[in-house]
Amino acid sequence: MSLMIEEIRQQPEVLQALLDRPPTALAQLRKRFSRQRPGLIVIVARGTSDNAALFARYLFEITLGIPTSLAAPSIATLYRRLTLPDQTLVIGISQSGESTDINSFLETSQNSGAFTIGITNEPASTLAGLADEVLPVGAGKEASVAATKTYTSQMMVLYCLAQSLGAAIHSSDLNELPAMVAKQLEGEASVRDLARQYRAMSHAVVVGRGFNYANGLEFALKLMETCYVVATGFSGADFAHGPIAMVEKGFPAFVFTPPGPTFEQTEKLVARLAESGVNTVCIGHETIVNTPQCDGQLLVHGDPITRTGVPDDTFTPIPSIIPAQLFAGHLSECKGLNPDRPRMLSKVTHTL
Amino acid sequence: MSLMIEEIRQQPEVLQALLDRPPTALAQLRKRFSRQRPGLIVIVARGTSDNAALFARYLFEITLGIPTSLAAPSIATLYRRLTLPDQTLVIGISQSGESTDINSFLETSQNSGAFTIGITNEPASTLAGLADEVLPVGAGKEASVAATKTYTSQMMVLYCLAQSLGAAIHSSDLNELPAMVAKQLEGEASVRDLARQYRAMSHAVVVGRGFNYANGLEFALKLMETCYVVATGFSGADFAHGPIAMVEKGFPAFVFTPPGPTFEQTEKLVARLAESGVNTVCIGHETIVNTPQCDGQLLVHGDPITRTGVPDDTFTPIPSIIPAQLFAGHLSECKGLNPDRPRMLSKVTHTL
Repeated sequence: MSLMIEEIRQQPEVLQALLDRPPTALAQLRKRFSRQRPGLIVIVARGTSDNAALFARYLFEITLGIPTSLAAPSIATLYRRLTLPDQTLVIGISQSGESTDINSFLETSQNSGAFTIGITNEPASTLAGLADEVLPVGAGKEASVAATKTYTSQMMVLYCLAQSLGAAIHSSDLNELPAMVAKQLEGEASVRDLARQYRAMSHAVVVGRGFNYANGLEFALKLMETCYVVATGFSGADFAHGPIAMVEKGFPAFVFTPPGPTFEQTEKLVARLAESGVNTVCIGHETIVNTPQCDGQLLVHGDPITRTGVPDDTFTPIPSIIPAQLFAGHLSECKGLNPDRPRMLSKVTHTL
Repeated sequence: MSLMIEEIRQQPEVLQALLDRPPTALAQLRKRFSRQRPGLIVIVARGTSDNAALFARYLFEITLGIPTSLAAPSIATLYRRLTLPDQTLVIGISQSGESTDINSFLETSQNSGAFTIGITNEPASTLAGLADEVLPVGAGKEASVAATKTYTSQMMVLYCLAQSLGAAIHSSDLNELPAMVAKQLEGEASVRDLARQYRAMSHAVVVGRGFNYANGLEFALKLMETCYVVATGFSGADFAHGPIAMVEKGFPAFVFTPPGPTFEQTEKLVARLAESGVNTVCIGHETIVNTPQCDGQLLVHGDPITRTGVPDDTFTPIPSIIPAQLFAGHLSECKGLNPDRPRMLSKVTHTL
């Protein structure tokens, strides 16, 4: 069995440990931000961590109302230009804490007066040494090059950070997540069976929206790096603005279909794909009806957490990515590949 | 001949007309922003216009030092949440001016007190009616569903807007662009010959960086919508963080290789791809040496515009996209497709 599958299975324990012993810096951050909230949040990250950053963008803008921008690191590292308004919070996310450009961006931000937070799995890393406050994700060593447990634990830390910044996120909701993740893992055998049917897949599109847009990009990234599938990830709306032209009968599509504000638009998209005979797999809590071409379903088991009585998607990203991670891990093995050692990649990537 | 190719060829005249008769609102904007510059710029757009927005993000952050964020429209339209700091400038970009979500985002921004600018090819559109100031791109009717001349004229208007906001962009440099575009068009026959060699291409990666990152995404979009090629666009650094695993010997890659701050990193990437036997086409001013696997070259003709004596990439995006547009238009025809009427698309896209 691959390390990737092993690490996917560790996630309930990793998330539970994070809830039992949350990063100590959260208390200081709560105190600091109760006096003055940031006016702007800038997040800098690459790869899977950048997908966690995209999730955070929706989380912070929706639950805090603070404008949040994903940095273009090259503006600081290559163009040597960076101006941040007062009261900007800069967050660097990196599994290893050793990404050259992330650390350089953080340093430049500090020099221009910004307060910085580092979110990393390596508390002794360069990033942790640099940042004003460190939030360790505590996932334990991630040995597979393909990041899985650090993605979900980064998301968990980001929920906690949003709480510290004043978001109405209840710990009781977060406490349900480890058990929900465990429930998804119970479905592993059926996910593996579905993956086997996709053994010959060479290309795919993955669509997510809102809180699950990041999951769409993360699933596409896993398919690219562990299965060598040419997978393009889109928001549902962006997909309709051009790329939808390339899909035809039998084209493999994967669509995150969580409940909540994005459901109606996503359901319409799935129906449109079905009409064209696109081979669509939905990843969500319920089977979308009226889609005879919806060939499979990566069911997200258990009821979604509701907020104020309304089913919504705020807490769906962590449970929803689990079947996608399992699918990529098993597809890689079905294809005779090694998901832990993708071609041309190492665990720490140095780019400028 | 397709309307798309016809409209690609109109670009020198369209850009010249824009320089001869710049949008009248620019003068008011210059006056307004000389009193108080925006603290934050938020741009909202979809599809090709969103690629122009990504170009603007680099342009504004590098030449103005104003943080610029590409909006996630669903936060306003589906999640009904939007908080903008004082002194935020919101810019909507839409060819038709009739994109439901762009207009809705602009309206919500206005209601929360933001000053809004609409950049559109249709001065009588809903967007133009809504925005506080309108900058018409004046490209003339774009009849092909595939946007080409509106992309470059949106970029030209964005240079002019940056000038009005105080950027040190010299009109003499902008004035050179129409002739440079005309020069690229002279190379059409050789681009068509190269496209013929790619008749059977089913997938590809496109890489751009910095000022040309948007061009990477735009070329990928053109390949998807007009050629049905599964094309994924990346920044060079993001590509190295995972997706690079999926390319192997013979895999088609297209890399924008402009001079300036991104050149060294991009050159390293091209060398790495060459080592793996990836079939790389560079789009730039000079042939990159030491890359025996660099199979073709979409040469950008003529010298790049230099600023303060240093060759840089500030003015490369408009000339550089021309060979890419021509390549997509001719590849579509070689494949027996109609680039003007992609499957499942219409000229105006309504999404929420």
